Amino acid sequence: MLTDLDQGVCAAAGFRAAGVAAGIKRSGGLDLALVVSDLPAAAAGTFTTHRAAAAPVIVSRERVAAGSARGIVVNSGSANAMTGPRGRQDAETMAAEAAAQAGVDPAEMLVCSTGKIGSHLPMDRVSKGIAAAAGALGSGGTNDEDAARAILTTDTRPKRAAVSHPDGWRLGGMAKGAGMIAPDMATMLAFLTTDAVVAPDVLRAAVCRAVDRSFNLITVDGEPSTNDAVLALANGRSGLRPSPGDLAGALEVVCGRLAEAIVADGEGATKLVRVRVGGARSVEEARRAARSVADSPLVKCALYGEDANWGRVAAALAKSGAALDLDALSIAMGGVTLLDRGEAAGDEAAAEAHRGLGAREVEIACDLGAGGAEGEILTTDLSPGYVAINAEYEP
Amino acid sequence: MLTDLDQGVCAAAGFRAAGVAAGIKRSGGLDLALVVSDLPAAAAGTFTTHRAAAAPVIVSRERVAAGSARGIVVNSGSANAMTGPRGRQDAETMAAEAAAQAGVDPAEMLVCSTGKIGSHLPMDRVSKGIAAAAGALGSGGTNDEDAARAILTTDTRPKRAAVSHPDGWRLGGMAKGAGMIAPDMATMLAFLTTDAVVAPDVLRAAVCRAVDRSFNLITVDGEPSTNDAVLALANGRSGLRPSPGDLAGALEVVCGRLAEAIVADGEGATKLVRVRVGGARSVEEARRAARSVADSPLVKCALYGEDANWGRVAAALAKSGAALDLDALSIAMGGVTLLDRGEAAGDEAAAEAHRGLGAREVEIACDLGAGGAEGEILTTDLSPGYVAINAEYEP
Repeated sequence: MLTDLDQGVCAAAGFRAAGVAAGIKRSGGLDLALVVSDLPAAAAGTFTTHRAAAAPVIVSRERVAAGSARGIVVNSGSANAMTGPRGRQDAETMAAEAAAQAGVDPAEMLVCSTGKIGSHLPMDRVSKGIAAAAGALGSGGTNDEDAARAILTTDTRPKRAAVSHPDGWRLGGMAKGAGMIAPDMATMLAFLTTDAVVAPDVLRAAVCRAVDRSFNLITVDGEPSTNDAVLALANGRSGLRPSPGDLAGALEVVCGRLAEAIVADGEGATKLVRVRVGGARSVEEARRAARSVADSPLVKCALYGEDANWGRVAAALAKSGAALDLDALSIAMGGVTLLDRGEAAGDEAAAEAHRGLGAREVEIACDLGAGGAEGEILTTDLSPGYVAINAEYEP
Repeated sequence: MLTDLDQGVCAAAGFRAAGVAAGIKRSGGLDLALVVSDLPAAAAGTFTTHRAAAAPVIVSRERVAAGSARGIVVNSGSANAMTGPRGRQDAETMAAEAAAQAGVDPAEMLVCSTGKIGSHLPMDRVSKGIAAAAGALGSGGTNDEDAARAILTTDTRPKRAAVSHPDGWRLGGMAKGAGMIAPDMATMLAFLTTDAVVAPDVLRAAVCRAVDRSFNLITVDGEPSTNDAVLALANGRSGLRPSPGDLAGALEVVCGRLAEAIVADGEGATKLVRVRVGGARSVEEARRAARSVADSPLVKCALYGEDANWGRVAAALAKSGAALDLDALSIAMGGVTLLDRGEAAGDEAAAEAHRGLGAREVEIACDLGAGGAEGEILTTDLSPGYVAINAEYEP
């Protein structure tokens, strides 16, 4: 019913975006993105629950509460987190300059940052970047790939997704995230736009629901971030008002694809791993058990080695605190049952599972034998590449 | 006041030990240890709180409750965990055969296993190994290094420690552990012996206290184990009855050294890292904050790279849930203050800290600015070596 589009935040009518190299990243790559709606838009967002929430999170959280916005300015290369009152001032200045360049009210510009924690933004470069991005917007600005690239840090590829509804409205988005990805929060940056007519409270509810079923069900390293934010703008440009169910459906599809793209691009990841837990007392317990497996360094190293080490999976399930019956517990890896209601399968099964784990996308399926609820978490393996990326000394 | 001895479980009079190769380990290395007291001994132990506690843990936990024992039989190479009723029977048979060979009551033999989860013990090899170990005991058996080697798995070196008290009694021990090391439990195997005269309840209290101040304050990978056990035997052979304070002091010294040896030999570790947290509301909160830093893969990768990335430390402290004041927070790494009551130091300090982190033993010192309590956790860095060790496919 929904049609896929090879676009991002500019799939929806009335949105323009640009990405430029402002010199914030040492590499000289694209590092400043600007997204602007040509008309007032309903706005909604979810933010990190981290106690050291970054300055731009604090600013955007306040602004999005008003229910409307006109644009989003984002930089990568510096997180503007743990930066005190000066960081807060920098985030406000960054938003004000972007608003001035875009010709909108300063309070209607949202702001996000991502990158290294603890350093101040180079405001002179940020200013020049904003001016350059605004210039690019003026001369068209409906190719949103540069914007999707400008928000990346250790990511290896841009993450966009968009759909069009048969009625004619569209919804698209972009996201970034590869490390410091942990469950139970809006765990990265994602920006969603739609030209549907949506009231702010309907948008808010739909975003919360979609985030809960997508970004909140992924993990790369169990590390919550200080800068996570998901922002959605609905500018009504299509003149079409979708049913709340249709809107929620489209949001879930786009958020789900972006979330999967984040895990697939996880730092050092060689595998996309789906951990499915059934037989739980509740969905919450199923997810908790799945997360315990998905965050276990021993399980993740075994996956990197394509070792069907179900004993580590069992240990991770048991430590999660979810109710389980050890005599009824079943575990399958790579499509092969290795523990069947408490009984271990033989060496042949382990060898077959080893072959199954050779795929790029693999599954760990568990049954706790304690109830009828299910849950799922997407994760990665743990490779020497993750260590290499995060061990790099930055002088 | 205490004198160090280059011995382990045979430092105390009246204890014999042996270690043999029973063929349980694929490598053909030493894998079965037997420790026997020549006379009845008071016994105490602490065990894993893991819900999938291994069969030998269940057997030894019941037996140690009686307050006395005569010996301990231990195998490495197979954990006898997640092995159901047959595993329980195997653990009892293993203890019974060791008791028969040592000429003691079956109920007085304690039993431990360590190694891969989910496979059954090769009981024929275990039996032959027990007979060989008993033979070695008969012909002397006071060189305890083979026993210390026979309990190792991914460890790279044996871990022994012993002290003698000026009054004449001695206390010694051995431990194993390199991965699946996490706080808040007796997180590995350790065996302690003393020839002091000690009542079971005094021994129990002293062991709990020492474990709480040593093994429970270390982490390698945040992974609790199914097989952890600390066992202590006091056979009174010296005829000397130490004060409870002296006994506790000696236990703390020996347990502290063994715990530090476990972290220093952590899987793939290139550094021993002391995370100290002060300015907390309570010791519990200080330790929780220190653990959050000590278990953070991002912090641990930065340590491997000798990168003074204090932002990751701050993020880990804030996510711990311990009370902290971001404006009063201070962080030092490698002996250099990088965040001073909320104010970041300059690039020069970061470069100096980078040099400080080049040492084999490094410190992260934090002040939460929220109270007067302190806590400390010992940990390792996270290196490609950890991944390599745990990614090995075992067909």
